[in-house]
Amino acid sequence: MHDIAHPDPHIEGHFQSSESVRDVVIGLSDGLTVPFALAAGLSGAISSAHIIVLAGLAEIAAGSIAMGLGGYLAARGDAEHYASELKREQTEVVTRPEDEAEEIYQIFDQYAVPREAAAPVLSALQANPAAYVDFMMRFELGLEKPASSRAHRSALTIAASYIAGGIVPPLPYMFVHPPYVVGGDFPVVPLIWDTTVALKYSVLITLLALALFGALKGRLLGTGTLRSALQTSLIGGAAAAVAYTLARLLNHS
Amino acid sequence: MHDIAHPDPHIEGHFQSSESVRDVVIGLSDGLTVPFALAAGLSGAISSAHIIVLAGLAEIAAGSIAMGLGGYLAARGDAEHYASELKREQTEVVTRPEDEAEEIYQIFDQYAVPREAAAPVLSALQANPAAYVDFMMRFELGLEKPASSRAHRSALTIAASYIAGGIVPPLPYMFVHPPYVVGGDFPVVPLIWDTTVALKYSVLITLLALALFGALKGRLLGTGTLRSALQTSLIGGAAAAVAYTLARLLNHS
Repeated sequence: MHDIAHPDPHIEGHFQSSESVRDVVIGLSDGLTVPFALAAGLSGAISSAHIIVLAGLAEIAAGSIAMGLGGYLAARGDAEHYASELKREQTEVVTRPEDEAEEIYQIFDQYAVPREAAAPVLSALQANPAAYVDFMMRFELGLEKPASSRAHRSALTIAASYIAGGIVPPLPYMFVHPPYVVGGDFPVVPLIWDTTVALKYSVLITLLALALFGALKGRLLGTGTLRSALQTSLIGGAAAAVAYTLARLLNHS
Repeated sequence: MHDIAHPDPHIEGHFQSSESVRDVVIGLSDGLTVPFALAAGLSGAISSAHIIVLAGLAEIAAGSIAMGLGGYLAARGDAEHYASELKREQTEVVTRPEDEAEEIYQIFDQYAVPREAAAPVLSALQANPAAYVDFMMRFELGLEKPASSRAHRSALTIAASYIAGGIVPPLPYMFVHPPYVVGGDFPVVPLIWDTTVALKYSVLITLLALALFGALKGRLLGTGTLRSALQTSLIGGAAAAVAYTLARLLNHS
């Protein structure tokens, strides 16, 4: 059935890879945004880098599992919905041929194609039940056959992308080290000496990552490189700014 | 154009409300899952209810903005993609009529409908350019015209549902109160006296909320009430368990 709808293996390949791209985009954009905003928000209220890293990693674990399992179940649900509708159409084509014929006429009627023009198409479909069912699935119900391994792959792709994106914002907090004295009179001040400094580095590298990701996404999906880069940075920045402000306000009240 | 594809206002209404249902499902399922897992994870590592509530609220702010804005941009992107493809088809129908006719034949060829059977349909479409373009949008490109106000509504629905779901898991942590002495010899022990107790209540009410939400979702989408209730509880529970274990391991290492 699948071969009828997509006779060209190149088209099918393109179709599957664009679904994987979509999964990577879903995982990366949420992974870069939510742990970023959480770390920024906590920095507005507490000074323990340890807790911020802990919260960030707990969020990455929670988010990647929730999104991955969610993606898995959504893909499984699509596949089951397709299978049950396919079965129903296969039965109806045999048991209620007049109703199915009327549905074909109605599909064409929506495009002002009269019954007598649609009749030859109906006859051709009736001569080939498999193609008839396929036609109804696509043109009556608007359903595409999902790739069989899609659910597992989708779950893993989304979860891995979420982790890859999520690990970026908490990174600077992992290198927080307070000033220390080695032997001389002056303390050695490490690059990142408290969470306020870590937040600045986190904002810097995450906005860079968001812009880079947005640019690549805009290029792949053809929505414009610069515009997409600005959009993803804006979403991430807005979420982080609101979380930071909210945490500060709550902490001072 | 829209009226041609969906002549029945009832069908259109059904279609829009099912998209809103989908937005509520997206927002609620992530809102109930991720703040739940975050609160559980932090409970495994720190004992300050204040910080857990703060992290939960920061996450809800971050998550609702990221998902809402993400949904807005996705819907806007769909609308722009539809508009640009519509323009292209409208031009091609006029400037490259032979190519468009060949595309019609190819669409039908996928369903084993011979050229001579498809020819009357092609003639009918060519007599009505608006319907012709509509037919190509739907059957060549598989695109449905998005509702015009969809982007705003989708963003608000997703964000509001995320907040509504997200507020449930941190609730018990807001009522943590240590035992206190009023006048007698024995301290008064409140219902929730530390974060370990709060975690138990959080698990209880969130799993109940997840099961209730899953049951309603399964009923609305027709995927089975009990099965859907089990699935949503399982995802939430798994995410929370992993986040809790991870935070405990990290805190003890």
